[in-house]
Amino acid sequence: MEKVVVAYSGGLDTSYCVKYLIHEKGLEVHTILVNTGGFSEEELIQTEKRAYELGSSSHINKTILNEFYQKAIKYLIFGNVLKNNTYPLSVSAERIFQAIEVINYAKKVGAKYIAHGSTGAGNDQIRFDVIFQTLAPEIEIITPIRDLKLSRQEEVEFLKKHEVDYSWEKAQYSINKGIWGTSVGGKETLTSNNSLPEDAYPSQLKKKKEETIILNFEKGELVGLDGIKDSPVKNIQKLEELASAFAIGRDIHVGDTIIGIKGRVGFEAAAPLVIIKAHHLLEKHVLTKWQQYWKEQLANWYGMLLHEGNYLDPVMRNIEVFLDDSQKSVTGDVIVNLKPYHFTLEGIESEFDMMKSDFGQYGEMNNSWTSDDAKGFIKIYGNANKIYHNVNSSES
Amino acid sequence: MEKVVVAYSGGLDTSYCVKYLIHEKGLEVHTILVNTGGFSEEELIQTEKRAYELGSSSHINKTILNEFYQKAIKYLIFGNVLKNNTYPLSVSAERIFQAIEVINYAKKVGAKYIAHGSTGAGNDQIRFDVIFQTLAPEIEIITPIRDLKLSRQEEVEFLKKHEVDYSWEKAQYSINKGIWGTSVGGKETLTSNNSLPEDAYPSQLKKKKEETIILNFEKGELVGLDGIKDSPVKNIQKLEELASAFAIGRDIHVGDTIIGIKGRVGFEAAAPLVIIKAHHLLEKHVLTKWQQYWKEQLANWYGMLLHEGNYLDPVMRNIEVFLDDSQKSVTGDVIVNLKPYHFTLEGIESEFDMMKSDFGQYGEMNNSWTSDDAKGFIKIYGNANKIYHNVNSSES
Amino acid sequence: MEKVVVAYSGGLDTSYCVKYLIHEKGLEVHTILVNTGGFSEEELIQTEKRAYELGSSSHINKTILNEFYQKAIKYLIFGNVLKNNTYPLSVSAERIFQAIEVINYAKKVGAKYIAHGSTGAGNDQIRFDVIFQTLAPEIEIITPIRDLKLSRQEEVEFLKKHEVDYSWEKAQYSINKGIWGTSVGGKETLTSNNSLPEDAYPSQLKKKKEETIILNFEKGELVGLDGIKDSPVKNIQKLEELASAFAIGRDIHVGDTIIGIKGRVGFEAAAPLVIIKAHHLLEKHVLTKWQQYWKEQLANWYGMLLHEGNYLDPVMRNIEVFLDDSQKSVTGDVIVNLKPYHFTLEGIESEFDMMKSDFGQYGEMNNSWTSDDAKGFIKIYGNANKIYHNVNSSES
Amino acid sequence: MEKVVVAYSGGLDTSYCVKYLIHEKGLEVHTILVNTGGFSEEELIQTEKRAYELGSSSHINKTILNEFYQKAIKYLIFGNVLKNNTYPLSVSAERIFQAIEVINYAKKVGAKYIAHGSTGAGNDQIRFDVIFQTLAPEIEIITPIRDLKLSRQEEVEFLKKHEVDYSWEKAQYSINKGIWGTSVGGKETLTSNNSLPEDAYPSQLKKKKEETIILNFEKGELVGLDGIKDSPVKNIQKLEELASAFAIGRDIHVGDTIIGIKGRVGFEAAAPLVIIKAHHLLEKHVLTKWQQYWKEQLANWYGMLLHEGNYLDPVMRNIEVFLDDSQKSVTGDVIVNLKPYHFTLEGIESEFDMMKSDFGQYGEMNNSWTSDDAKGFIKIYGNANKIYHNVNSSES
Repeated sequence: MEKVVVAYSGGLDTSYCVKYLIHEKGLEVHTILVNTGGFSEEELIQTEKRAYELGSSSHINKTILNEFYQKAIKYLIFGNVLKNNTYPLSVSAERIFQAIEVINYAKKVGAKYIAHGSTGAGNDQIRFDVIFQTLAPEIEIITPIRDLKLSRQEEVEFLKKHEVDYSWEKAQYSINKGIWGTSVGGKETLTSNNSLPEDAYPSQLKKKKEETIILNFEKGELVGLDGIKDSPVKNIQKLEELASAFAIGRDIHVGDTIIGIKGRVGFEAAAPLVIIKAHHLLEKHVLTKWQQYWKEQLANWYGMLLHEGNYLDPVMRNIEVFLDDSQKSVTGDVIVNLKPYHFTLEGIESEFDMMKSDFGQYGEMNNSWTSDDAKGFIKIYGNANKIYHNVNSSES
Repeated sequence: MEKVVVAYSGGLDTSYCVKYLIHEKGLEVHTILVNTGGFSEEELIQTEKRAYELGSSSHINKTILNEFYQKAIKYLIFGNVLKNNTYPLSVSAERIFQAIEVINYAKKVGAKYIAHGSTGAGNDQIRFDVIFQTLAPEIEIITPIRDLKLSRQEEVEFLKKHEVDYSWEKAQYSINKGIWGTSVGGKETLTSNNSLPEDAYPSQLKKKKEETIILNFEKGELVGLDGIKDSPVKNIQKLEELASAFAIGRDIHVGDTIIGIKGRVGFEAAAPLVIIKAHHLLEKHVLTKWQQYWKEQLANWYGMLLHEGNYLDPVMRNIEVFLDDSQKSVTGDVIVNLKPYHFTLEGIESEFDMMKSDFGQYGEMNNSWTSDDAKGFIKIYGNANKIYHNVNSSES
Repeated sequence: MEKVVVAYSGGLDTSYCVKYLIHEKGLEVHTILVNTGGFSEEELIQTEKRAYELGSSSHINKTILNEFYQKAIKYLIFGNVLKNNTYPLSVSAERIFQAIEVINYAKKVGAKYIAHGSTGAGNDQIRFDVIFQTLAPEIEIITPIRDLKLSRQEEVEFLKKHEVDYSWEKAQYSINKGIWGTSVGGKETLTSNNSLPEDAYPSQLKKKKEETIILNFEKGELVGLDGIKDSPVKNIQKLEELASAFAIGRDIHVGDTIIGIKGRVGFEAAAPLVIIKAHHLLEKHVLTKWQQYWKEQLANWYGMLLHEGNYLDPVMRNIEVFLDDSQKSVTGDVIVNLKPYHFTLEGIESEFDMMKSDFGQYGEMNNSWTSDDAKGFIKIYGNANKIYHNVNSSES
Repeated sequence: MEKVVVAYSGGLDTSYCVKYLIHEKGLEVHTILVNTGGFSEEELIQTEKRAYELGSSSHINKTILNEFYQKAIKYLIFGNVLKNNTYPLSVSAERIFQAIEVINYAKKVGAKYIAHGSTGAGNDQIRFDVIFQTLAPEIEIITPIRDLKLSRQEEVEFLKKHEVDYSWEKAQYSINKGIWGTSVGGKETLTSNNSLPEDAYPSQLKKKKEETIILNFEKGELVGLDGIKDSPVKNIQKLEELASAFAIGRDIHVGDTIIGIKGRVGFEAAAPLVIIKAHHLLEKHVLTKWQQYWKEQLANWYGMLLHEGNYLDPVMRNIEVFLDDSQKSVTGDVIVNLKPYHFTLEGIESEFDMMKSDFGQYGEMNNSWTSDDAKGFIKIYGNANKIYHNVNSSES
């Protein structure tokens, strides 16, 4: 029997796929769930159980937090990446690494087909297909949900017919959770003028008294919190727990999708927002003006290509080495104040802080240059403007 | 007697300049105060009185709110300009237009000299000098504060000697107020790790109950608030009053100065922050992806050149026409929720909203394309990546 | 009977389309040839005759040299656009404006369908379809050549069956001629390592003795040659005649197609190359550093979007106003020396030449600044580097 | 006695400096000549002899071809750097590495002072001073030529007075020769409208019959010529000898100097031009679209900062790792045809050539996608434009 690997999440759509591929296509189904931080241990066990109940010949749960961090989150932090100045790419980044795991698994088990549950109307289908086609052009992609365009009801009926009868409660919002944030879509996000109600967000405000937390960075990585060292992944998780209690990091992303239409999606991403803003502040103290300029250029592009499924373009590797190299002196502490719904950055401490140099302080006269030096500087600094206006005098 | 025009603010430094230029240089002093929104009527009267007391042969107060808006603020809004992703260029933009007014006045009165009170340690001297030298190379610049490097006490003594004995109380913070925000420097901002205390900010929290306000934009300009039309300048002032009561828009800017050292300055800019963020959200709905991309590129550069005193570079005019042209469809309402210390954007309404097009909604299957179209799209969309990995197969 | 408008060129593919649409689809065919400079009067007459012989209900030849110049060539000159530093976008720009004419004509005659003869393997289908779908989503596109994938022989047979029996000689190279250059594809261009033979180029070397020609620019436009004023379109044609006799402007463009694969095509474009290089030199004398920088950024993007069929993205209009505004002082003469196969730029003369300013000459000491000014300038100019190395001293 | 290290070239200006520093300043002079390829063995011996005759306490000649290649030329090739699309940065790059050698030597010999012979009117003084001040802020810079502004005659007289009486013939052109090209300034280059006469160029046309040469690249480096492997430095020298016989690579650079004025300088750089153009063509075949795009952005900036003396900004190191990483597949042969005064690129051969992929050839229908795929692609590809025009319909 020919094998198909299904990217399985435990939900209605991919459960339908499993059953459909077994019964209608006569394939041997192998399921895999790639966990980028959104699934609890219990949920993973539950999903595995369900996969076998549906008839999967094998199922694996693969948690890839560290790999996801090393290959993407790290660079999103180095680059202070917030798409459209807002969105930490919570979901889009995950999809790529889920796709890579799934296709590698398909190659490993010798599958002839690979299946995912995306529709034909969004970005995820593109992220999955592009990765699959690039890394294994020989494996054919099957997408029952995209092709058949069934209603929820039709899917439930089909599963019932095959004696699968879970309670597929329709959530009011479509929620995607991962270590780098949770997206929340539905109802209000389908309009342009409504924001999500408080209770649409998975995390709720629990703390009202402000707290100060110190983020310890080493070469751009979050290596500790309040001086307690741990792996960056663990630190992100700890900070998320702490900061989400303040209901921090909520917003709505409005952006251009790969398919050319506008999309709007809510998200909560407490740790990502705090980390990126703190990291960015540290960089303002330790990087030169042009380092900051070019990092921003490249990182925004990196975020865009990642978002749009082009993670495998080699320019992404080129940008990564640039970002890596730029972090040599991004070492120091950032003091952050967490408050209900928002946070402030108090300041930083770093041995590489350029405000601490011997070259004097802004606004304070010092020994590095004289007023005559300043006048000489300005005279020549202004030359280009002066010459232009001298030559174009009728205009000025 | 030869004439000198002094850019006069009423403070100790420029008061010293007036007296110094009369008594030590034997010049006929004409003072001008250019008000970009930071002076009340009373302060203007007071400053004029003081100028004459110091011996100024003539004094004028010139308020340039509308010109400042038309020539700079408008473009800072069109471009969503926040320097280093934080600072609305509150002070730096003003200086340029103050300088232009002052030099034009100097030409008008036939002055041989022009004087300002900047030190040799900051950005302002550069902004003033570059504008002066470019627009009137024939007028010589005198900068007593920069050249003499006197202490406060020495200045006070000199004035006393000349029978000027005001109470020059030394403010704890150096505050610069204008229509586009107020900067707050001193003490904590001279460190890297301390933030400004609550009471360092001129505006204090007065409102705790959240309020919703609707910003009405027309071709990128703020033409109304809650449907009540007024001039953009008036709307900025109204919004500032409203939003500053929530203590919104405070932050600390860390940046690279024109003289190459790092600088840190606090600011409060409630209206600028709310307007820019609201305007930016509206643009996400009505502009194409590449319009947003290039606007950001050009506008950040515009902000940088403005900040660095290069307002007269003709590329600034080129960028302005680009920004102007990009605002054709930036018309609509933005719903903003004001809360203590922060605000949220609820959504927008616009006839040009691309989310409302007939081409279907993100994530919802529709009639504009089929699943086969989507598959065809992805196949070709992925070509470049596929070809690269096909040719570089040993690497993948 | 339902009407179809066919973009007709007189060649085998589009002749097949006409016959096919009449006989197989039962449509009333209206043909239009949009001439962007590649057709002689005689060829136009010949094509019209052929259209009627094939059964076209009506035929028009529309020459759009001036419109093509005003809407595209002008900006390609303003922007010094050479794709991949080589190719003046000879064919790609034309296609867009041909498509616009054709779809407008289809709307005018009330056609239900529109047809073009492009295959499914190139860029042209995309340029045509995107323009058609955007400007008239209600008109359906028919593409017999793309859909049926017939061989030449099958097309000839079909036409013969319908009593059309021209001598469709197969040219060794596929040649597309227009006012902004001629592309030459086939045989060698399908390899990576062979260049086109001398006789593959339509123009052949006729002159061996070098000639000097002066290009007169006004606000970026070529308003005269050797002081003889004429319209830019006429000047381009005159210069093409002159320069192509030197076999100037030949090269091979290697680029990334819209469909993600690499493409290679030869071209000859004597006038475009001479004009762009001359215009660029003039700009180096009259524009500021940052004008040149941003013009290049925007213009390369403009060329890319035009090439890739995105002429209707509104960012193109935004870029055009920037480019327009940047040309205010691009007025002057450029002296060009034409030689066999290449040319050199001798120099320029312009009232806006910034080398002629009163501010002194490069390398010559002058009165604008002293050696002390220079030292002060350098001291402060070097601050950022000095501070970085002071703080990162272990590294230096 | 306090020591001074003098950057000595053997010419009048630096000879004056040596004598002046000994006799007028009472310093112990140590001279160093840093050779970046412009001095023959004989000239080096001659210069050393002259240094001792002038009274230098010690002299060294340091040739740094390989270091110059490894630290700069390599990246200029990787980045296809031609300033203002013309100039390979022949002189500006050299100055930086000469300065680094000189300052390191000054530190080594324990000098208190360092001296160079630049005037106050050009870029070189800035390149020297910035490097010196950054790498050794404790060493004081002495610049007699800049400070004293003597005429040639005064310098000759002073030397004569001290019994130095060489024949300082005044060359008609100021010529700077190095491995990466030779600059030629004077007379015509001080105007805007005259080009250099044939005999102003050091190399003269010797060959008239065209020759084909194959450049062998490995990871972006020129590792061989016609299959004969050698070090990149040697290959550059061999190619220069070959190509300069065709009088290739001559042009005039017009650019913005660091001091804000326009400058114009002739150059001949046969090997640099041929190498850069060949390397660029190879990249068009083996790099993706966005690799090429970002390489160009970064490399132009790299060239600008290098030119402007900011080699020590750490962003330069960040860009270098990007460029390095981008060259992984830039391996292959480029066929070049050398002719009198110009050259053509015939084509390339590379195992990484993306035109050779299995994904089909441009313009040729193939098995990678169907016409339906193409139609689906275009439908979705055009969405953004279609939506914009749908919403802004009144405008279109």
